[in-house]
Amino acid sequence: MTDFVAAGVDRIRRDAPLVHNVTNLVAMTLSANVLIAAGASPIMSAAPEESGILAGFSGALVVNIGTLTRDWIEGAHAAVAGARAAGRPWVLDPVGVGATPFRRETTDALIAQRPRIVRGNASEIMALAGSGSGGKGVDSTTGSDAAAESAARLARDTGAVIAVTGAVDLVTDGNRTLTVANGHELLTRTTASGCALTALIGAWAAVLDDPLEATAGALAAYGVAAELAAARTAGCGSFVPALLDALGALDGTTAARLARIA
Amino acid sequence: MTDFVAAGVDRIRRDAPLVHNVTNLVAMTLSANVLIAAGASPIMSAAPEESGILAGFSGALVVNIGTLTRDWIEGAHAAVAGARAAGRPWVLDPVGVGATPFRRETTDALIAQRPRIVRGNASEIMALAGSGSGGKGVDSTTGSDAAAESAARLARDTGAVIAVTGAVDLVTDGNRTLTVANGHELLTRTTASGCALTALIGAWAAVLDDPLEATAGALAAYGVAAELAAARTAGCGSFVPALLDALGALDGTTAARLARIA
Amino acid sequence: MTDFVAAGVDRIRRDAPLVHNVTNLVAMTLSANVLIAAGASPIMSAAPEESGILAGFSGALVVNIGTLTRDWIEGAHAAVAGARAAGRPWVLDPVGVGATPFRRETTDALIAQRPRIVRGNASEIMALAGSGSGGKGVDSTTGSDAAAESAARLARDTGAVIAVTGAVDLVTDGNRTLTVANGHELLTRTTASGCALTALIGAWAAVLDDPLEATAGALAAYGVAAELAAARTAGCGSFVPALLDALGALDGTTAARLARIA
Repeated sequence: MTDFVAAGVDRIRRDAPLVHNVTNLVAMTLSANVLIAAGASPIMSAAPEESGILAGFSGALVVNIGTLTRDWIEGAHAAVAGARAAGRPWVLDPVGVGATPFRRETTDALIAQRPRIVRGNASEIMALAGSGSGGKGVDSTTGSDAAAESAARLARDTGAVIAVTGAVDLVTDGNRTLTVANGHELLTRTTASGCALTALIGAWAAVLDDPLEATAGALAAYGVAAELAAARTAGCGSFVPALLDALGALDGTTAARLARIA
Repeated sequence: MTDFVAAGVDRIRRDAPLVHNVTNLVAMTLSANVLIAAGASPIMSAAPEESGILAGFSGALVVNIGTLTRDWIEGAHAAVAGARAAGRPWVLDPVGVGATPFRRETTDALIAQRPRIVRGNASEIMALAGSGSGGKGVDSTTGSDAAAESAARLARDTGAVIAVTGAVDLVTDGNRTLTVANGHELLTRTTASGCALTALIGAWAAVLDDPLEATAGALAAYGVAAELAAARTAGCGSFVPALLDALGALDGTTAARLARIA
Repeated sequence: MTDFVAAGVDRIRRDAPLVHNVTNLVAMTLSANVLIAAGASPIMSAAPEESGILAGFSGALVVNIGTLTRDWIEGAHAAVAGARAAGRPWVLDPVGVGATPFRRETTDALIAQRPRIVRGNASEIMALAGSGSGGKGVDSTTGSDAAAESAARLARDTGAVIAVTGAVDLVTDGNRTLTVANGHELLTRTTASGCALTALIGAWAAVLDDPLEATAGALAAYGVAAELAAARTAGCGSFVPALLDALGALDGTTAARLARIA
């Protein structure tokens, strides 16, 4: 069941895939450091003049709408076009999509460009599926259980694998559904920890062909690293370096052994 | 005297107020993490398309001019209009206001929109009050004592509570003045530590009605956390995670006991 | 040989030079913290309305193209013009210059404005000199040895001191060449560690007149701090606070003693 977890962890270290990020201003540094810790090589650019080129020669593209601007949207679409033209998978993080029409419209236009994977919290996924209240700002007000049906419908409607992260994560392609029970509460006390996880999913999508396995594997590896980090620190501040330490030291065998995927 | 310190710390944890930030690029991550550690829920956006909406449903708005652009100014004004329309308090951080005409003109236009609270170092507050040399870049060249008269005049002229932070902080509404003697020198060796403090004042303004108490309480709580963190580390780098750890573990009783407000 | 190393470390602490940064979004926080740890005072702004003024009263300017936009380019040119008008040195970091035409054209236009110092990895310097394949994204695929001839030619063509950083760093003005053998592999596992080093070179250029010595001294001091930090931590996450701690505690005598400059 978790052979793909070991395979993913080890292949990222071996292949060091380039992952292009068109992401938000708060998440940039942590996303880059998470990718580097896992063994990938991050690039960041939202410039329309080059984001399509960068996405085209990367192993995967990650698009995160957390701090939208008109210029950023142009750069994101250029990147998506570059990834699609090159046949590369791309991953969408619809941060706070229910909070404003601007986020909603931008996300709808991006989803029409067929992301391979979408990751959000329960409020975001329910908002996307038209079944939620839109959440409270960028933090979820709902558990991921409640979003299960929304996620499955959204997966069927969009053709994307949908990940709903929370205390227990849920990953579905509309037919198959996996749950991932790894992770730690301290992740909710670190800004951009969800965004950085989406970046990591990009690295997994670059090395594993099955987007359901790539997503579940990334969630498990990140969650295992969080558990190992939380065992070494009790504080929300010292958790971040500990998380990167744990992710940087993680090998495939350990990740597979500690993964709780069902 | 310090009942409001305990009340503020505990209410932020209980109510988890949304705080909308139109802030600078260097301060974003630390500001978000300080707000989360204290128990608040941060949002960041400078897009005019949505910043007014986000400010309108947040408990408070924080505006920080540290990395100004024309687009950012438009987003800041939209956010301020949203906060004012919804009757929410907003807090201004005039980073390096004396350094350039661009910062000065932007700050003057923002102050005309009646912030509830303004926090700066002595050079910034004296520049705003027309009595200083403008400081050296974004760091202060003057102690907060020297800024006392400027701060009181600025408070009376603008209707805002003015906080001058330094070795001893000063908070005034033009009539009442409090001093806060908490804090640690390591804060001056961490970029954006003042900006993140302004963000924290936003969370306090969302849960306490009196802006003088909200400001003094935030300064005391942040200063107490800095003292607890400095007791555990001597380095300017390891101080940051330790500060977040301490802020994340701080309860109202401890904060009130260690607060040095006069 | 290493008298200038001690002199540089101590003068930065004594003079606290202002260093203006027009830099990339991923590198801002670490660059500011590295400058503060070393004793300098960072400013960040890419706004054309003020970046020339800020560069004009700073001791040095650092320009880093890591997350280019059209607006940023305008701000960078304004800053460079301000630095040149005031006779201040400026330092260029051509991040990923070989990756896209947009980066290449922007870098060529900046180099025409005569930077005092250019720092890059081997792939970047070889791309600039027209002799490399352009590297893989923003990470180097070549050792710095291979770039020695390219660096010397580039130095003669541009009049800038060229630094090629890697396992062993190389610094040349086209006639004289120094190598710096300090540093640690963990620097390659931290995002923006090279960008922050370029920022530190700016502080050195503000206090030492000879750009070759300023560059080699900055590389040695940063490398020594990395070695001291790596002796205290094995993890890529906890390395960052440890690096800042070590840099913040470094004195000129220790830096000169541990420097491996040839």
